[in-house]
Amino acid sequence: MKFVTYHYNGKTSIGVLARDEKSVFPMEEVLEDRVFEDMISFIEAYEDGWSEQIQDYLSQGKKGLALSDITVLAPIIRPPHDIICLGVNYQDHLEESQKAMKSDTLKKVEAPVYFSKRTCGILGPETEIDGHLDMDEYLDYEVELAVIIGKRGKDIPKEDAVKYIFGYSIFNDFSARRLQRYHTQWYKGKSLDDFSVMGPCILHASGTSNPYHVDIMTMVNGETRQQSNTNKLIHSIEEIIADFSKGVTLEPGDIIITGTPAGVGMGMNPPGYLSSGDEVECHIDGIGVLRNRIK
Amino acid sequence: MKFVTYHYNGKTSIGVLARDEKSVFPMEEVLEDRVFEDMISFIEAYEDGWSEQIQDYLSQGKKGLALSDITVLAPIIRPPHDIICLGVNYQDHLEESQKAMKSDTLKKVEAPVYFSKRTCGILGPETEIDGHLDMDEYLDYEVELAVIIGKRGKDIPKEDAVKYIFGYSIFNDFSARRLQRYHTQWYKGKSLDDFSVMGPCILHASGTSNPYHVDIMTMVNGETRQQSNTNKLIHSIEEIIADFSKGVTLEPGDIIITGTPAGVGMGMNPPGYLSSGDEVECHIDGIGVLRNRIK
Repeated sequence: MKFVTYHYNGKTSIGVLARDEKSVFPMEEVLEDRVFEDMISFIEAYEDGWSEQIQDYLSQGKKGLALSDITVLAPIIRPPHDIICLGVNYQDHLEESQKAMKSDTLKKVEAPVYFSKRTCGILGPETEIDGHLDMDEYLDYEVELAVIIGKRGKDIPKEDAVKYIFGYSIFNDFSARRLQRYHTQWYKGKSLDDFSVMGPCILHASGTSNPYHVDIMTMVNGETRQQSNTNKLIHSIEEIIADFSKGVTLEPGDIIITGTPAGVGMGMNPPGYLSSGDEVECHIDGIGVLRNRIK
Repeated sequence: MKFVTYHYNGKTSIGVLARDEKSVFPMEEVLEDRVFEDMISFIEAYEDGWSEQIQDYLSQGKKGLALSDITVLAPIIRPPHDIICLGVNYQDHLEESQKAMKSDTLKKVEAPVYFSKRTCGILGPETEIDGHLDMDEYLDYEVELAVIIGKRGKDIPKEDAVKYIFGYSIFNDFSARRLQRYHTQWYKGKSLDDFSVMGPCILHASGTSNPYHVDIMTMVNGETRQQSNTNKLIHSIEEIIADFSKGVTLEPGDIIITGTPAGVGMGMNPPGYLSSGDEVECHIDGIGVLRNRIK
């Protein structure tokens, strides 16, 4: 099941994609007049029984709102906290970052590297991104598997971690590389407006197709830049949830982005930073495509 | 004017301190039946004319709810984003940190160091803090002047920065030093539950007593540990707002903590980390005292 947030007829709603992924059913229709303010309240309210109910609905072969008639937004627009980010969580990206960042920061990475990304509103697919190229011409892309937390928890044991996952999405962790280094800590260079982009949907964790061994890639203007597989994560999703939640409460709607593989612009020779007009496409098999253009 | 959030008779409300600071007037009484859900909604709604109206009310010499009858909470409990933090923003603390952290991270600090601090609920004065000493025995205190943002803004010019300030508070930026280093970036070691403590009030920016040249100090079990003056900030409050807001939208209720002076436990010889039962008192002249005990 793939859940989306969309805009239609002057209203923002949440819905579920039809099986052919060509149309969307409004959630209040599928779940019989239950109304959800947004994706976060849907996640908070979610009951196990709904999965079957939604699947039943989808199996009826009805036709929903055509994707061409709606605007798909980021599935979560305002998360309850800054986005929790994993740095250098693919071995090949760790190596390219050590080379490119010319700093000692990444010399001895033994533990998960956590930082955060501020957003006043996550952008969705097919939007234009303010690359802030006037502030920093080293604008970079980072495709990442996003994990959406489903319920409140702290000190979560690794073996229970999957129970806390609501679903998965694709995240483009846009980064201003000069600012990322200039301010010593990465927060500012990751937090410019428009730098959080997610979508097109949340793949619900109840399915059989959880994205732990799937291809993840980025194309810039049609050229493949990043190409890896989510089974190459250094710290697995369960390890991250268990480790990060030690002493820290996670809440429904929290977004954890799990790191990016090699192939970012910073790691290329010569560097392949983004320019105005560039089109960036992030793919994760089983979730979809997140395509954006730099303004 | 000093605004507080307090608990009384099973209800959480916001109010203003009487001039003798011995009692509190509920805001709906002062502003004639206007009701505010919390401090954030008060800040969002705040109109310039209210300052005079509130001052008039306070000058009537009425008696409010005695402080002894209420529980003062953190003035803002759930900020709209992670707390925006300044690292090493006092010269003497920069030097002690360079020595203590034994890492190259802080060797060449040329720009403001920004990081963030996650919280699921800021704690107030006189509360007991879970120090998470089982996870990290290097528990440290950091007194900081907190700036509360009053209105939405981006690319704010330095000369306009004060217009975006709602007020000021005292913040204790509890830090788990081992985790802060272990995870390369500082975010996790700063973000454990209970590590965000603020209060006892917000000093409104309309007064003449804005805390730019006031003493700031910490005592642990009655012993003075940190003692400095807010005029020793490397990057001033106006500079921080102007610089951080470049490309990043600030929102009402956002909290910026402006860095801590020398004298943290990490910088002492031998180190003076906190233990269970320790009492930490943070003072900023003109704002008040923020006292807490480690569980």
